Amino acid sequence: MGKTRARIAIDAMGGDHAPAEIVAGALRARDELGVEVILVGDRHSIEAVLPANTNLGQLEIVPAQGTIEMHEEPLSGIRRKPKASINVAMNLVKQQQADAVVSAGHSGAAMASALLRLGRLSGIDRPAIGAVFPTIVASKQVLILDVGANVDCRPKFLEQFAVMGTVYSKYVLGIPEPKVGLLNIGEEESKGNDLALQAYQLLQANPKVPFVGNAEGRDILSGDFDVIVCDGFAGNVLLKFAEAVGEVLLQILREELPQGLHGQLGVSLLRPNLKRIKQRVDHAEHGGGLLLGVAGICIISHGSSQAPSIFNAIRLAREAVDNEVLERIQGSVAIAEE
Amino acid sequence: MGKTRARIAIDAMGGDHAPAEIVAGALRARDELGVEVILVGDRHSIEAVLPANTNLGQLEIVPAQGTIEMHEEPLSGIRRKPKASINVAMNLVKQQQADAVVSAGHSGAAMASALLRLGRLSGIDRPAIGAVFPTIVASKQVLILDVGANVDCRPKFLEQFAVMGTVYSKYVLGIPEPKVGLLNIGEEESKGNDLALQAYQLLQANPKVPFVGNAEGRDILSGDFDVIVCDGFAGNVLLKFAEAVGEVLLQILREELPQGLHGQLGVSLLRPNLKRIKQRVDHAEHGGGLLLGVAGICIISHGSSQAPSIFNAIRLAREAVDNEVLERIQGSVAIAEE
Repeated sequence: MGKTRARIAIDAMGGDHAPAEIVAGALRARDELGVEVILVGDRHSIEAVLPANTNLGQLEIVPAQGTIEMHEEPLSGIRRKPKASINVAMNLVKQQQADAVVSAGHSGAAMASALLRLGRLSGIDRPAIGAVFPTIVASKQVLILDVGANVDCRPKFLEQFAVMGTVYSKYVLGIPEPKVGLLNIGEEESKGNDLALQAYQLLQANPKVPFVGNAEGRDILSGDFDVIVCDGFAGNVLLKFAEAVGEVLLQILREELPQGLHGQLGVSLLRPNLKRIKQRVDHAEHGGGLLLGVAGICIISHGSSQAPSIFNAIRLAREAVDNEVLERIQGSVAIAEE
Repeated sequence: MGKTRARIAIDAMGGDHAPAEIVAGALRARDELGVEVILVGDRHSIEAVLPANTNLGQLEIVPAQGTIEMHEEPLSGIRRKPKASINVAMNLVKQQQADAVVSAGHSGAAMASALLRLGRLSGIDRPAIGAVFPTIVASKQVLILDVGANVDCRPKFLEQFAVMGTVYSKYVLGIPEPKVGLLNIGEEESKGNDLALQAYQLLQANPKVPFVGNAEGRDILSGDFDVIVCDGFAGNVLLKFAEAVGEVLLQILREELPQGLHGQLGVSLLRPNLKRIKQRVDHAEHGGGLLLGVAGICIISHGSSQAPSIFNAIRLAREAVDNEVLERIQGSVAIAEE
């Protein structure tokens, strides 16, 4: 053994289904993943959703007061509520009492809190939010970053995103040789806006980035890329569009499939198959994003996360801790800058 | 009657299925839509795909030599091949022998040809390519522009796109009071990159634009917007992603539905319903884009267009001609500039 167990601070109060689903996912992760979980939030609310047989002596709860609401401006909220659950969770990482944070709360607030309390990794100008999309290949996913932290980017930001995405893809998602692409409007090097044209040159020249070329909109879900970098504006539009598209497709299936003489019967025969289809296209099955570039491991889950998403988020956090992702990013950035 | 019939110049040689499918769509449009079609291209190739009973005396063919290939750089191709079918078709509009052009060939080449031969409408800095997306509401579509003509935009370009999109939505797509949105990463006026922040102010202040606010990625397919403006980079990524998503879903249905004990039977019972689903999500059923802002009506169909798409494209061209879209855009821009 030897290795200590990863300690994950969970923002128990963040998200649409907090604290019940957050706590449920955390307890399952503790039992099945061999991690320590620290539940951060209002002790009374957390205890109220624990299973009746819980041994409170074995459960670590760190008290916090309030959360940053979705309508609040992140930075001012973070400053006005120093005892909010996300702030307390970040402090645990800063004080080395936890190895990572998982939150399904206000993602902008989580980023602001991470920046203020943990700071950036040296050599990283801007942290990025990454999101994992499913692809047409059932066993493959693609990591897109940035999906919203930086709406206006300079070319070197995209280069740094690529370095971070490469490390994350290798050591957390388990892709030995990730293929990195640049989101663009054509395959050719000569295509793109000013940002893409300049970023292409930087990516091609960086030995730490296994850059394979431009990824067009149609390539995102093809499974041909493991990491795709873009500015946070395009990435955020894509993320929200992709999430909605899954819902639209399920809605169309619900409307059209049961129609007509044989519709109901056909649907009932296909029920297990339709469930698998839902799993493949529904974003709610895929969890949320991750914050890369701050001096700590932060997994930002979707606001709508339920227990399975939180469980998956904690597994990602554990992989990041166990595989020393921060140190590896730091190493890659340092070498790239020499 | 009184009104003369719209004369549509068809680039018979442009597209993956030219000339057979292009000619078939054109002939159907001539017979069913009450338009005159002028087939532009190699006379021998066109005549070879005509039905046996065609009365050649009633069919107008204007000869052209060659096409701009997909791998060719648009502007140099257009200049090097003045007799290419797209150039000859544009010349017909310039010389007022045709009212509109429909092409499924190289879209960049069509734009270059239109710019060189027809020029821009006064008051329009940059023409835009618009594309019509289906929405979750079966009867509603949304017009997105720009989807690729201008990868780097200034705020006033987006304002002009909004003016043109409003006119097109009203007078071609038949939406009496179109709702216009700005593609952005949040609902609030304070959200967005520099371009979006500035464009928001211009859109809000322009009395010719029925601006209702920001449209996030998740709102694109909601049916809440009739027109959404964005720069050509984001729009192109979205367009290609949306087209691919439809294919991905159909692929997942093909993989998952027939599986298991009852899969085949269930699929056979649902065959007509699945066909309707395919129609709603498959981009090939929806045709292509349109070029707005040049001094002529140009419909740019998808390269993969078959006869039904060409038929639909010609119908759009006819609506644009009959409803005097160019004059209305010109009027709106002029007033907006006062």
